[in-house]
Amino acid sequence: MALSTPAPTYDTIAVIGCGLIGGSLVRAVRKTGAARTIVVAEQGAAKTRVEELGIADRVTSDLAEAVQGADLVVFATPVRAIGPAAGIAALAYKPGATITDVGSVKGSVGQALRASAPKTVFVIPGHPIAGTEHSGPDAGFPELFENRWTILTPANDPSSDYRAAVDRLAAFWTRLGAKVDTMDEQHHDLVLAVTSHLPHLIAYNIVGTADDLEKVTQSEVMKYSAGGFRDFTRIAASDPVMWRDVFLTNKDAVLEILGRFLKDLDGLSDAIKAGDGDALQTLFTRTRAIRRGIIDAGQETAETDFGRHHGHAPVSPEPGSE
Amino acid sequence: MALSTPAPTYDTIAVIGCGLIGGSLVRAVRKTGAARTIVVAEQGAAKTRVEELGIADRVTSDLAEAVQGADLVVFATPVRAIGPAAGIAALAYKPGATITDVGSVKGSVGQALRASAPKTVFVIPGHPIAGTEHSGPDAGFPELFENRWTILTPANDPSSDYRAAVDRLAAFWTRLGAKVDTMDEQHHDLVLAVTSHLPHLIAYNIVGTADDLEKVTQSEVMKYSAGGFRDFTRIAASDPVMWRDVFLTNKDAVLEILGRFLKDLDGLSDAIKAGDGDALQTLFTRTRAIRRGIIDAGQETAETDFGRHHGHAPVSPEPGSE
Repeated sequence: MALSTPAPTYDTIAVIGCGLIGGSLVRAVRKTGAARTIVVAEQGAAKTRVEELGIADRVTSDLAEAVQGADLVVFATPVRAIGPAAGIAALAYKPGATITDVGSVKGSVGQALRASAPKTVFVIPGHPIAGTEHSGPDAGFPELFENRWTILTPANDPSSDYRAAVDRLAAFWTRLGAKVDTMDEQHHDLVLAVTSHLPHLIAYNIVGTADDLEKVTQSEVMKYSAGGFRDFTRIAASDPVMWRDVFLTNKDAVLEILGRFLKDLDGLSDAIKAGDGDALQTLFTRTRAIRRGIIDAGQETAETDFGRHHGHAPVSPEPGSE
Repeated sequence: MALSTPAPTYDTIAVIGCGLIGGSLVRAVRKTGAARTIVVAEQGAAKTRVEELGIADRVTSDLAEAVQGADLVVFATPVRAIGPAAGIAALAYKPGATITDVGSVKGSVGQALRASAPKTVFVIPGHPIAGTEHSGPDAGFPELFENRWTILTPANDPSSDYRAAVDRLAAFWTRLGAKVDTMDEQHHDLVLAVTSHLPHLIAYNIVGTADDLEKVTQSEVMKYSAGGFRDFTRIAASDPVMWRDVFLTNKDAVLEILGRFLKDLDGLSDAIKAGDGDALQTLFTRTRAIRRGIIDAGQETAETDFGRHHGHAPVSPEPGSE
């Protein structure tokens, strides 16, 4: 190793599940040198594909074998599989190891990770707020976490060993390009219900509704989707099993936010029925500011149409063609 | 004019209103030579801006003056302004001229255009299914209509003069790169309620809901928006006046489709409450096919995340960085 490369943050990392997030993680770890040795646990066709891609030093379908020498264990399976997988793997955790995950729900996952973990390891649940509509080992890429937030939900454990483990995990994510925040699990689950789970629920629902209509054909929906609908289809193309698990494990927060959404939609529907143009225009003006804030916060491109029309519009800095 | 340039489809075109669509139209017309002379009607700051941009041969705030020599008149104002503008302009229409528009609602607009038009002109309402979240004269670009569908809603008039006018208008849009379809106004308004109006209503609503929560701060919504929410904010940044008018003039179709959406959402909510993972996974799997269909229909990019991560993912053909 060249002198200019900083020491690995962890000697050995075990990634359990190598889909979009796990596959991006191992690529980012290798690119940044954040761990010396990368072990992946996968099964079936995904295991074969990870071996073919050569993105891990070792690939196994044996959970105990995967975690036994690991200083950092990252569960990257759909969230309802984390508890069972951790239950098996926990028997082989290395004393002093940090146990984390990348699941979109933290309350139930944190509980599951803690339930099986011996006192000799540090359980620090985590969630990188990043993703695309693609899934599987091929979908990953090392830049996925760059400039995106990773939320850690550490326990309320004031011991210096635990705090040091949290700091080290934060340094690991920072090394992969992420920005790191901490919050408690319940708050995380409510925040994500707003910024991610409800949008997915709504997108899946609207695409399903459009598909079911009798008076408008599927061909018409597809041809004329550029009016706005196609944006929803991107989200509604996300991994079905991952999202099934999110809604089953973050039920309460999702239903709470859904209730607020429905109440607001009722008001909007009333404004349309009553022909209240002022109410509509006021809302439609206010929502523009949120997007501006997201762009200013560096979490979105300012390019027209997400950059679909490269170079055509004044805000697009790069020439090119679609 | 070089011999290789085909003759203009219309000698003189008048575009009433020069926002995103009108501004794209005049640029596309100039780029393709689809008309010899371009006249724009605008007012106030927008009029000054159109003059500065030099995208029209003549800019006036006088509607009668704008349309008096025009072979094609295109109303490109918010839809509720089309009726009043046409009422004034109609007195100066050139006999034999074609009168069209680009509004997102066709029933009420068609009615308004016909109400004021003398029998000497051909009224053929139209709607290019294209747009971005930006508005104003600067937002336009000539490629906006390329490979997008333009729907014409001609009257049921079998006269050869009228059919020839429809064919000529279709040829005009084809020249700008669009694909052209015809259908009746009521069907258009129902199709667009699905593919455009409901998605906008939902996006405006969800962004409004997120903005109003007490337990989740606006800063949190912005920071963690990459989980899905930020896609909705693009649509919810669209022109407020245009969209106010769409919902006021396509009330019935929007409320019909909204009713279907709410019924489906109720079922989805019940599945979450009941922990019915199979129902969720079945829907979430079905919706993926719709996106694939839209990509195959050439109406969407296959690039990951709309191409926000250029070159990072396997489906992206171009190297580059975000």
